[in-house]
Amino acid sequence: MTRFFDQHRAMLLSAVAALASREYWTPFPEVPSGKIYGETAKTDGEAAFAALIGDRFDLPGHPGQGAAGTEVSPYGQTLDIRYPAATPDDLIAAARAAAPALADATVEERVGVCLEALMRLNRHSFLMANATMHTTGQAFAMAFQAGGPHAQDRGLEAVAAAYAEMTRFAAHARWEKPQGKAAPIVMEKSWTLRPAGIALTIGCNTFPTWNSYPGLFASLATGNPVIVKPHPRAILPLALTVRILREVLVEAGLPADAILLAVDEPGAEVTKDLATRPEVKLIDYTGSSAFGGWLRDHARQAQLFTEETGVNSVVFAATDDLDGMCANLAFALSLYSGQMCTSPQNIYIPADGIDTDKGHLGFDDVASSLSGAIDALLSDPGRAAGICGAIANPATQARVKAVAASGRVLRAGAAEGEAGPLLLVVGDDAAVARDECFGPVAFLVPMADADAAIARAADLALTKGAITAAIYDTDAARIARAEAAFAAAGVNLSVNLTGNIFVNQSAAFSDFHVTGANPAGNASLTDTAFVATRFRRVMSRRLVAA
Amino acid sequence: MTRFFDQHRAMLLSAVAALASREYWTPFPEVPSGKIYGETAKTDGEAAFAALIGDRFDLPGHPGQGAAGTEVSPYGQTLDIRYPAATPDDLIAAARAAAPALADATVEERVGVCLEALMRLNRHSFLMANATMHTTGQAFAMAFQAGGPHAQDRGLEAVAAAYAEMTRFAAHARWEKPQGKAAPIVMEKSWTLRPAGIALTIGCNTFPTWNSYPGLFASLATGNPVIVKPHPRAILPLALTVRILREVLVEAGLPADAILLAVDEPGAEVTKDLATRPEVKLIDYTGSSAFGGWLRDHARQAQLFTEETGVNSVVFAATDDLDGMCANLAFALSLYSGQMCTSPQNIYIPADGIDTDKGHLGFDDVASSLSGAIDALLSDPGRAAGICGAIANPATQARVKAVAASGRVLRAGAAEGEAGPLLLVVGDDAAVARDECFGPVAFLVPMADADAAIARAADLALTKGAITAAIYDTDAARIARAEAAFAAAGVNLSVNLTGNIFVNQSAAFSDFHVTGANPAGNASLTDTAFVATRFRRVMSRRLVAA
Repeated sequence: MTRFFDQHRAMLLSAVAALASREYWTPFPEVPSGKIYGETAKTDGEAAFAALIGDRFDLPGHPGQGAAGTEVSPYGQTLDIRYPAATPDDLIAAARAAAPALADATVEERVGVCLEALMRLNRHSFLMANATMHTTGQAFAMAFQAGGPHAQDRGLEAVAAAYAEMTRFAAHARWEKPQGKAAPIVMEKSWTLRPAGIALTIGCNTFPTWNSYPGLFASLATGNPVIVKPHPRAILPLALTVRILREVLVEAGLPADAILLAVDEPGAEVTKDLATRPEVKLIDYTGSSAFGGWLRDHARQAQLFTEETGVNSVVFAATDDLDGMCANLAFALSLYSGQMCTSPQNIYIPADGIDTDKGHLGFDDVASSLSGAIDALLSDPGRAAGICGAIANPATQARVKAVAASGRVLRAGAAEGEAGPLLLVVGDDAAVARDECFGPVAFLVPMADADAAIARAADLALTKGAITAAIYDTDAARIARAEAAFAAAGVNLSVNLTGNIFVNQSAAFSDFHVTGANPAGNASLTDTAFVATRFRRVMSRRLVAA
Repeated sequence: MTRFFDQHRAMLLSAVAALASREYWTPFPEVPSGKIYGETAKTDGEAAFAALIGDRFDLPGHPGQGAAGTEVSPYGQTLDIRYPAATPDDLIAAARAAAPALADATVEERVGVCLEALMRLNRHSFLMANATMHTTGQAFAMAFQAGGPHAQDRGLEAVAAAYAEMTRFAAHARWEKPQGKAAPIVMEKSWTLRPAGIALTIGCNTFPTWNSYPGLFASLATGNPVIVKPHPRAILPLALTVRILREVLVEAGLPADAILLAVDEPGAEVTKDLATRPEVKLIDYTGSSAFGGWLRDHARQAQLFTEETGVNSVVFAATDDLDGMCANLAFALSLYSGQMCTSPQNIYIPADGIDTDKGHLGFDDVASSLSGAIDALLSDPGRAAGICGAIANPATQARVKAVAASGRVLRAGAAEGEAGPLLLVVGDDAAVARDECFGPVAFLVPMADADAAIARAADLALTKGAITAAIYDTDAARIARAEAAFAAAGVNLSVNLTGNIFVNQSAAFSDFHVTGANPAGNASLTDTAFVATRFRRVMSRRLVAA
């Protein structure tokens, strides 16, 4: 049936058009407003979340005899939700059984299921906000956006890219080859799309939906059964996603087991087992480069799409809006306590300072302006909590505390259990500033001059990976040099951001997230390469006349 | 400069349109006619080829002090052409030096160079025919087509696919995000294309241009310097290609070293050294799965696009044109002595025979009809030579001779030094019929029934790889089952071919060559996946208003 496709066709075509134009577009409002989502949406979402706590999570028909799940909210509450736990054998068997029907479904049937599921996920955005908040530690407003509409955007983007690619070439053709004065040779040709195999989506702790939806939806739309393996600390948002998708699949006459949940517990992870199964042909992974490397070495039967470790840098070269610059970066550093893959970490500043609208300021003056801006931003505890959220993983807190001794402390922040980033001044040769230090910490690094700062930031991106870079400058020629340097390093650059837009933000349909051109990941959300190899074309041709 | 692009823009856009429609199209006439290529083209080509024999091959400005080359025509002549031989170090250094200018060139500049080079290669098709004939052993007519216009088609196809992909998304966008009643956030965004790195094209003995052009032109068009490493027995066609490309690059103001020739001699190959250089990020390879596996294991820094070993099958299920079927397959088996990656090898026939327009015929009757059709086709020695050509590699002759004892000989053919295929009847469990036996040999295998034949052929394709499959049948339901089985096995199927079109033939712009969905290769000529990861997009965005 193509009812779902027909219902959402206009949205799909708008999404495809937005992909090409890269202009602003979204069907999923990011404002958590009752006027948009319904007056009771907020309380309904809270109630639905509360009802899940302490209960067994129901996934009708899902394989597995056991139960697993040990999630604890970063805000303190034990979720005590028990999910169906299936063995890798059971999951692979179920996915294999679902594969033929999913492969035989039409493009419109599969894409329709994905679109309908995204619409339903959107309607559940308040529930998803609570689920995201209490697994990732994101503050509510961010959990709503990143867990809900922004993740749905990224899912839709992947579906649109997959749809565009699946329909890019004619499915049927009449081929007439002239034969001089003789009659032409005529052949009828048809192409079938053949999915790659079973897909595995490996979720992360901090953005369980936003980072998982692209691979999940791209694989499903192109006909591959998907096993979703959430991070053991952030299962609920993906379990809710799987439940909705299973419901829609069944309504569309397709097997529920085209999407499956692989739940495990810390210390007993099933990821390696699943990732190395010969039937698994697609793996989407967000996480450390260490485990990314393990997958590269061991899961060689599968195509691997990754987002991994990186070091994001900011260069202060000059500014005509010191306060705007510091306020903007203060927010970028504080948002979700630096736990975004797009959060800046290293801030390179000429040792002898920079020109500003307040005159030439020395390194320490610039540093203290930034520090002061963070303090001002976070002076109200309620506002600070709403920006910084909570730390998802105790290891992050420990990591930040451990590096505090590596430099001159400008601002203690999270290292002392307070809100916001630890600010450390370190030398360019400091080891801590040459690798990712995930969490609420930023290193201020004095450099010989702005060009040296650009060179260092770009070199670090190329060798260690980076997803974002930012520069503040007033010199057009130097900005052009920075653009060239960061382009060569494969890192997206933001220039002179002030106001309510931040380097951490990556907007679906416009910003490709990760370039695939440096070690921070081999895949880009969502370009053609992200979808093009998830299926193949196979022809049947027959002679009509010869 | 974009003069070349402007000159060939109409052809490019036609090529892009043909890719989408998959209908018949080519700008490169396949008929070796003086009326098309010029009245003196044939003699000019012969003269140009003769002038190359016994001389040093000139590649102005190409790195390398030495000289190498030991080509001998399969027709007997020692070519005695000495090519500039550069070390891998020299080649990598030259490619690195050329990379920035090539990356900085516009899409139109690079694509223009590729289009102009293809046009010049087309004009040199008679020379290329001689070069191809005397390195591959192809007969002249085939060498003209496969070495010339058909290879140019595949090159143009890759350029068109690369162009379509590079221009698929806006290069600039104005992004306006509404802010309720406040003014929108406005950003200007620009994207730069970043090439993957140095590309290595590893040519094969039998189709040096046809199989190399797609990767070579795709990499060059997307901004990657290309090192062309020909098979040591088939250097000349690619050396001519490199020379023309270097000339066009220079005329376009780009570095000649954006394309380089890596010549070696048997026993002193430089392929492994080049393939494992960290700077090499793209490898296009045509050849055995054994060396393909070596590349997978050792050249892990690079993306690998392969065409490898496979076993192509034909199923005889039923026919209403016995003579047409046998004549068609006789040609398919004889053409270039089975040395095409698309040549059929295994012919599965129900043990109790098939229904035909001449009544039900037993296995032996069908087999002898086929054998007789081959004998008839090749009865005239001149015609036989024009179809079968010569054996490119002495190992092929030895291989075919060695398998002759593996079954019941229906037709001795090449095993006894005669023209055309050895025909052997072997059991389904015979080891020789379960792997590729490259060369002029076909195995006739009795099966329980037609469905068993389809299942065996499809299973072999899935496990050992296959590029083509063919079926002759009159039962629509069984043909549909065959289409499903071969689609699942990732192999393109030809149904009931008779007359002047053959299962071996793969037409650019319409037939995707290799599906990428079974072990016969991981890449498809030319789908989006073939070009999409040869470059990446990197953004610079700046705030206009916030």
